[in-house]
Amino acid sequence: MAERIGEFTVSLSSRPTVWSSAAIVGKKEGEGPMAKYFDTIETDTRMGQDSWEKAESMFQKKALSCALNKAGLAPSQLQYLFAGDLLNQCTASAFGLRESGVPLLGQYGACSTMAQTLAMAAIFVDSGAADLCAAVTSSHFCSAERQFRYPLAYGGQRTPTAQWTATAAGCAVVGMGGKGAHIREVCAGRVVDLGITDANNMGAAMAPAAADTLSRFLDDTDTKPSDYDLILTGDLALCGSRMFHDLLSRKGIVLSDNYNDCGLMIFDRDKQDVHAGGSGCGCAASVLCGYVLPALERGELRNVLFMATGALMSTTSSKQGESIPGIAHLLHLTAE
Amino acid sequence: MAERIGEFTVSLSSRPTVWSSAAIVGKKEGEGPMAKYFDTIETDTRMGQDSWEKAESMFQKKALSCALNKAGLAPSQLQYLFAGDLLNQCTASAFGLRESGVPLLGQYGACSTMAQTLAMAAIFVDSGAADLCAAVTSSHFCSAERQFRYPLAYGGQRTPTAQWTATAAGCAVVGMGGKGAHIREVCAGRVVDLGITDANNMGAAMAPAAADTLSRFLDDTDTKPSDYDLILTGDLALCGSRMFHDLLSRKGIVLSDNYNDCGLMIFDRDKQDVHAGGSGCGCAASVLCGYVLPALERGELRNVLFMATGALMSTTSSKQGESIPGIAHLLHLTAE
Repeated sequence: MAERIGEFTVSLSSRPTVWSSAAIVGKKEGEGPMAKYFDTIETDTRMGQDSWEKAESMFQKKALSCALNKAGLAPSQLQYLFAGDLLNQCTASAFGLRESGVPLLGQYGACSTMAQTLAMAAIFVDSGAADLCAAVTSSHFCSAERQFRYPLAYGGQRTPTAQWTATAAGCAVVGMGGKGAHIREVCAGRVVDLGITDANNMGAAMAPAAADTLSRFLDDTDTKPSDYDLILTGDLALCGSRMFHDLLSRKGIVLSDNYNDCGLMIFDRDKQDVHAGGSGCGCAASVLCGYVLPALERGELRNVLFMATGALMSTTSSKQGESIPGIAHLLHLTAE
Repeated sequence: MAERIGEFTVSLSSRPTVWSSAAIVGKKEGEGPMAKYFDTIETDTRMGQDSWEKAESMFQKKALSCALNKAGLAPSQLQYLFAGDLLNQCTASAFGLRESGVPLLGQYGACSTMAQTLAMAAIFVDSGAADLCAAVTSSHFCSAERQFRYPLAYGGQRTPTAQWTATAAGCAVVGMGGKGAHIREVCAGRVVDLGITDANNMGAAMAPAAADTLSRFLDDTDTKPSDYDLILTGDLALCGSRMFHDLLSRKGIVLSDNYNDCGLMIFDRDKQDVHAGGSGCGCAASVLCGYVLPALERGELRNVLFMATGALMSTTSSKQGESIPGIAHLLHLTAE
């Protein structure tokens, strides 16, 4: 049964468990520092499809299939899929998962989608609405670039604050019992918009939401950053992470070496020309599902805050002069 | 506590209650047969904004505010907003609700979003994860036409199967206790895609999903259509409703006069030139929140199946030759 702690946090007394997880990534991600943690590195990031959008769907399909295989489950054993992505009308999910036969509850949280889908899966399992659910998300550099920025062939110059959308999908299967990471608490984020309008500086747009969610969670649970092994944001990357530090320090919250960001972990900024770092739903998803959840299962990590961040804009809203609303959803994950 | 009934249905033993609901519609919807049920009819469908997309956000904002006022609640008393819409990256919700200060869990189910958001709100309340949540969605004829079809000024000809996207928003506030409609069961839909590729015949693309979800629910609950006062689909409109009847009859399920479709109710097809009928998230949302939920509260309706239907395509997927996947989510609503 879920119980509210403080104003914003929900504690899941049944401690839903991640039965298995999978991370499928593209070639560039497979050349980065996290390569050894990923289940599959696709050297053909088109996945044999005739468009990048269709390829992105294949990443989701493969992530679900890989996670189910690891847990020895058939799709028919899942009650719900919680899935979303960055494509217009979330088509990477709809098309990637349409043949699964599993009821689909589409989620949209921009790059925060991995945290949001995992939170939904945990709450549904905890409530008894489901025995088993999967949380799935993806992003693809090529489908995102041409949808949000320029045609790839145009070769647009990127600013130093720009981030590189990861080509990757992650999937986590959640149920009761089992021996994986436990989902202990969930703190959903509210929209925070400080007026950033630079669509080439997503980290800055999302950092205030991340600071808001983390500070509310720490308040609600009466804990401090040093109580955790790892505090991990989704894709603030270099600029956003610095702002995140700064915004938190103004609230009297000091982060130390136990803080990291998936956007800084997935690529080698010195060697891979990704400017401020990685981004996209698949960035946080692949680092969580490839590295964090298995490390919790093995006991190498014991007490983690995972907080994926999203920028809730579209090209239309930006062209109409709107600022970029940010959001961040947090999960407290433990080994026991 | 949620309990699974059969393979696909969840029963909510605490019977979460709709504390209040609101429907805000545009001028054309206010000239239709349901006019007297709507809370506000906006004669300026631009809502004083400089774009239709911004206007659509204002519809959501106003629907939330109206529903909260009716229940005598402040936004800060809500724990979650479940909201979504048809615009790319669901910006009608993100921008319309960003100032509310309420944690936002964005939902994407295309035109099924009203059923999906209401289901999420009910499951969260039933589980104890929330005391009070709101479910919000919208559509706008002008923002949808130019995003999915043609610029309005082009004056594109519409086929007889085409539907008219309703300019409307609906909001329902869900909690425990109270005296409104109760949410008894939820049956989430799986993606059903029979290969329809005509983006001007959404009803046909969605009807198979509606038939799938209704037949699964009736199986799970061992009930028949005549057990309900009203069985209501979201926006199958004329062509889709006929297919829905036909598909169900092949499964041995016969619908009678207690069946209707929000897309057929919201407009007068003879007088309003909407071709096959209404569509859009706002169509099902405004009929549900303006008419059905209040009628359940007054006891004029007692036992309703509400099933909103969605077409999970984008212009990109259609241009790439993909068919249109359909989905339908069902709620069983009762007066007691």
